Amino acid sequence: MLTVDLNADLGESYGIYALGADEQLLPYVTSVNLACGLHAGDPHVMWTSVNLAIDAGVAIGAHPGYPDLQGFGRRDMGLSAKEVYVYVLYQIGALSGFLRSAGTTLHHLKPHGALYNRAAVDPEIAHAIVQAVADFDPALALYAPFASCMANAGGESGLTVCHEVFADRRYEADGRLTPRRHPDALIEDPEEACEQVLTMICDGKVRARTGEWVEVRADTVCLHGDGTGALAFAKRIRDRLAAAGVRVATYTNA
Amino acid sequence: MLTVDLNADLGESYGIYALGADEQLLPYVTSVNLACGLHAGDPHVMWTSVNLAIDAGVAIGAHPGYPDLQGFGRRDMGLSAKEVYVYVLYQIGALSGFLRSAGTTLHHLKPHGALYNRAAVDPEIAHAIVQAVADFDPALALYAPFASCMANAGGESGLTVCHEVFADRRYEADGRLTPRRHPDALIEDPEEACEQVLTMICDGKVRARTGEWVEVRADTVCLHGDGTGALAFAKRIRDRLAAAGVRVATYTNA
Amino acid sequence: MLTVDLNADLGESYGIYALGADEQLLPYVTSVNLACGLHAGDPHVMWTSVNLAIDAGVAIGAHPGYPDLQGFGRRDMGLSAKEVYVYVLYQIGALSGFLRSAGTTLHHLKPHGALYNRAAVDPEIAHAIVQAVADFDPALALYAPFASCMANAGGESGLTVCHEVFADRRYEADGRLTPRRHPDALIEDPEEACEQVLTMICDGKVRARTGEWVEVRADTVCLHGDGTGALAFAKRIRDRLAAAGVRVATYTNA
Amino acid sequence: MLTVDLNADLGESYGIYALGADEQLLPYVTSVNLACGLHAGDPHVMWTSVNLAIDAGVAIGAHPGYPDLQGFGRRDMGLSAKEVYVYVLYQIGALSGFLRSAGTTLHHLKPHGALYNRAAVDPEIAHAIVQAVADFDPALALYAPFASCMANAGGESGLTVCHEVFADRRYEADGRLTPRRHPDALIEDPEEACEQVLTMICDGKVRARTGEWVEVRADTVCLHGDGTGALAFAKRIRDRLAAAGVRVATYTNA
Repeated sequence: MLTVDLNADLGESYGIYALGADEQLLPYVTSVNLACGLHAGDPHVMWTSVNLAIDAGVAIGAHPGYPDLQGFGRRDMGLSAKEVYVYVLYQIGALSGFLRSAGTTLHHLKPHGALYNRAAVDPEIAHAIVQAVADFDPALALYAPFASCMANAGGESGLTVCHEVFADRRYEADGRLTPRRHPDALIEDPEEACEQVLTMICDGKVRARTGEWVEVRADTVCLHGDGTGALAFAKRIRDRLAAAGVRVATYTNA
Repeated sequence: MLTVDLNADLGESYGIYALGADEQLLPYVTSVNLACGLHAGDPHVMWTSVNLAIDAGVAIGAHPGYPDLQGFGRRDMGLSAKEVYVYVLYQIGALSGFLRSAGTTLHHLKPHGALYNRAAVDPEIAHAIVQAVADFDPALALYAPFASCMANAGGESGLTVCHEVFADRRYEADGRLTPRRHPDALIEDPEEACEQVLTMICDGKVRARTGEWVEVRADTVCLHGDGTGALAFAKRIRDRLAAAGVRVATYTNA
Repeated sequence: MLTVDLNADLGESYGIYALGADEQLLPYVTSVNLACGLHAGDPHVMWTSVNLAIDAGVAIGAHPGYPDLQGFGRRDMGLSAKEVYVYVLYQIGALSGFLRSAGTTLHHLKPHGALYNRAAVDPEIAHAIVQAVADFDPALALYAPFASCMANAGGESGLTVCHEVFADRRYEADGRLTPRRHPDALIEDPEEACEQVLTMICDGKVRARTGEWVEVRADTVCLHGDGTGALAFAKRIRDRLAAAGVRVATYTNA
Repeated sequence: MLTVDLNADLGESYGIYALGADEQLLPYVTSVNLACGLHAGDPHVMWTSVNLAIDAGVAIGAHPGYPDLQGFGRRDMGLSAKEVYVYVLYQIGALSGFLRSAGTTLHHLKPHGALYNRAAVDPEIAHAIVQAVADFDPALALYAPFASCMANAGGESGLTVCHEVFADRRYEADGRLTPRRHPDALIEDPEEACEQVLTMICDGKVRARTGEWVEVRADTVCLHGDGTGALAFAKRIRDRLAAAGVRVATYTNA
């Protein structure tokens, strides 16, 4: 039986600023990636999010990003591999303090935004992230796109790699995500997004923006938490997966 | 035989900005308190400082402060107890990520600057800090002034309290530190500072600014790392302690 | 004929984080106070807000706050008068850069949140703010509560003081706002808020939380931009003012 | 008679963190570029630096950088042209608030670090900076390397362009600075640096790292304020310029 994890980026509020429908989305996902205070999130938000996630019984991952709150971690920064290593380690540690105080532990790590995109194509940055994960806890899973530098670096270092696909993002012929600045980057039609997800899970392929079929692996599907219609889409994809006989469960290496 | 710990606040550099003579001071102390990125320190500084401290064989503590880099954590902030709890937990976690990746663990926690001063006199804030420590790891020692709200809160919660005295700060008749804004707050004469330390360790008392003798307990002595003459004073106090037959060693509860 | 200004705090979004219904509220106010990047707002938000305000034809004021984005400038900070002076000057300058590039100038200044509350009761802090305004441009008006330290300091320094009242906040018998932490701090009923405003404008008094009548002066009324029902209330108060024959116009000293 | 301006980047301290020998260097320069709070500097430092510069009688310029204090503005950031425009405008405004309160005005603008380097080669970013300057005050001079995108954009927009050369940095055959990460990026020998400066001023050329002669124009020479030997070098270059009959004076367009 096919199994897939559904993940969402949560805990992205900051101070007085609320972002995302975290509580509403939690019942529909099996893992969450929590911001760690540099691109989004603050200590109070992290504490709240960790406790919400524990109550919902979902797996918790760290979602470290660039130190750029004004840009929400979506602007590339020319960090050295060493800088990426220490920023990621800082963020894993900060989040796990809240998990530890709540009696639980981290399940995985997924880089955020521009750091995720950079690590997908830059072996040195990918390796720095993997090294931070391995040095903190080699049992953590790494969420990474299939065949990316990050997935490769994780595999080489012996980490469990959980291959991630996106429901509402379009893909290029080389398997990468179409950049957000491209007019056709987002799949607006929920039905089309569902179809893309099912094809990725069941057939291991996705049709690129330019028409080619590209091989992918879909261990986990990212449901964006901050877009309009996030909640409606989460319900719809759960229904479609159930109808297709795909089990939804937190990813394990077993 | 009398034993005392010597501690210093290290890891307070930030980006291009260097502060303190960390490497020079390390051979003279038995424990260090490392800034955690909010009032000082950054991920690279934290990584460097943790590794320096490990190489020097000293005990490592977290030194959390207010989220106020421009004020170096020395300006009081009207945080709620809950806010203090989450800020402290965030900082403990962030620092311990670096320790964990280096194969070691935290030994203690000592709040910084205005947070330290507030916790000394405000039971609610003291309790918030203690709760964060206890929730993260109840085996951590808490550095706190004798008979302060923070020492009391730590004791009530079952934490090991390591009573801290200051070599170069003057005391008031109620046992508190003379505020930094007072013209006579700092003891400039190294000899006078040494005398004060020895009297505190050997006789359990200190002469207040206004002449009274005040009871203290000196489990650890703070040597400031960023003042002029910090290094010379560290050497001098080690010599004086040796001459007086006081053993210098990391504090343990045994 | 009685005249009153209606002001709102706008431009409080930050990066990806949207706050307030700025565009909707603009048609109902005659002056706006724009955040300057320390407690809220960022350069892009400031640019956008300045241009929206110019298009709406309202007077633009600086709304400087404490350097505390996580606390939205609502947490008190132990800044010296000199620190307040330079923080305020920095923020006035930063905002006026955007005004200057758009071919217009500042009309007034109104401190934000905890800085506003502190300046209302602390003569030294009030004077520091007034000095920054006077040093930048003595023609700027200062928004301040009647009979507050800030109003007094402004008057003594020759600034135009525009006395501000709040529609939805309750007052104490000494004329100060009931602190936000008090359960009865906010007036939830729009009708009651309208009555309070009209009585303040027409009769120069307000009934305190504890029943006493307190003298006030209402040159401008603050309409909060971020609360639920902000827009509906703005419409309602405009209608009530029109019915009562009160003219709504930007405050001038003439 | 040949004339040249000597400039230095000052005001780069932050909070408790001191950087540079600003007071010592001031007597040797004719213009200064002051950090504006995003990559370095804070409101108190800006106030202090403006007053020091006024007392020294030197021309004052804004030195805006990327919003990256931890990286000192030396890490490239993927900002859009619009983002660069608003960040630069924010910083010009903030600094000029301090100048205005002190009764003086800005003389020029020089971008800092990675923003300077980006603007030298990226026409869109160069244009964004030039637009911010022109919108704020078209009378401001723009410090930019000869034949760079920034110099070209400034010229096209009608700004006064003051061509800047570096005493202690090596040049590539295309006229750009050798990147800092290159082992041979800095000229360590003061005598060699002096020779390079004199040749650039008197002969309008510089010998590239790889041996070629490159055309330059030297209206102003940057003396770094934070390096070891900055002060000694400033004295030496003043002596050498005097001996060569080159007049040192603030750049004017006359």
